[in-house]
Amino acid sequence: MKVIVIGATGTIGAAVVKALAARKHEVIGASRRGELRVDIDDAASIRAMFARAGEADAVICCAGNAVFKPFAQLTDADYALGLRSKLMGQVAVARIASERLRDGGAITLTTGILALQPAPGSAAISLVNAGLEGFVRAAALEMPRRIRINAVSPPWVTETLIQFGMDPGPGQPAAEVARAYVASIEGAEQGKIFDSRRS
Amino acid sequence: MKVIVIGATGTIGAAVVKALAARKHEVIGASRRGELRVDIDDAASIRAMFARAGEADAVICCAGNAVFKPFAQLTDADYALGLRSKLMGQVAVARIASERLRDGGAITLTTGILALQPAPGSAAISLVNAGLEGFVRAAALEMPRRIRINAVSPPWVTETLIQFGMDPGPGQPAAEVARAYVASIEGAEQGKIFDSRRS
Repeated sequence: MKVIVIGATGTIGAAVVKALAARKHEVIGASRRGELRVDIDDAASIRAMFARAGEADAVICCAGNAVFKPFAQLTDADYALGLRSKLMGQVAVARIASERLRDGGAITLTTGILALQPAPGSAAISLVNAGLEGFVRAAALEMPRRIRINAVSPPWVTETLIQFGMDPGPGQPAAEVARAYVASIEGAEQGKIFDSRRS
Repeated sequence: MKVIVIGATGTIGAAVVKALAARKHEVIGASRRGELRVDIDDAASIRAMFARAGEADAVICCAGNAVFKPFAQLTDADYALGLRSKLMGQVAVARIASERLRDGGAITLTTGILALQPAPGSAAISLVNAGLEGFVRAAALEMPRRIRINAVSPPWVTETLIQFGMDPGPGQPAAEVARAYVASIEGAEQGKIFDSRRS
């Protein structure tokens, strides 16, 4: 399949690109600063990316930011960032992909463990991740042309924990997380939230 | 307890006011066009409402809009309305109430069955409701001064179904839905999503 990976240069995205290539898929990497540029906060940028990438069977989004900060310190701008980027940025990818992908195509977005297992400091991220999961479950009921939509829910990624000098113990290596994206693309699931620790 | 009910003139809100009064609580009703005015889309309006209402033990929000419309027809403006009103309007109520309520106070927001049981047309509402539930679960971990935060998830309300000429069969009467709000205010739960059909 021809698969567009948004956020291809990030920790998870790079692992997803590698996993897809190993499975002989044709991979097109897109990112904020790569050959194929895209900023998911901007629908026009997403449309331009699809136009430049040409016909594709699948899109995977590993991009999107949200703010982790104590509840009492979260500002309007902190919430707005997560809504604009990780939540509605990915919703925009799904809306546009549902029109542009080939028949029977697959959309895979990225949520995260904090949707269902919050931690102090996660109010804005938990809102964003849970909202995205609600969207995926609902949008799956109305995808046109046999297009499927799913999301992958990773825990903290080992490489990220190490990068921030934290205990990598609870983390999952990006290469393992990537398997859930491959399963989402290659399988038949519709409206599923893949727990990457069980995929 | 002294309880502020936002959306007091709506179908659910009016039933909540009645149920709280029957339990001898002091109820202050707030709405867009009442004696105590509030527009939850506007944080300044929420702050002014708390200032005028005086010290309170609990706030219940039964207000907030979102758009039900086929996925392919949902516009940016439709998504934005739900984010601004039912989602971030209620988040704003919670953020402000966490500073204004008395110690040990209770915040109860309104989500809905579409968070977990979507229907064709519910993509924007499912996003909003699920996001709100993620927020409540997370914010509950950081409430100050023993303040509790919960949400009630009602199904379609019988009175609303009748009003729109739909089959009232799957609905729950507002008076029954209201019981879940009373349980949330009077109980000890923290971060719980009350299914009004089981409360």
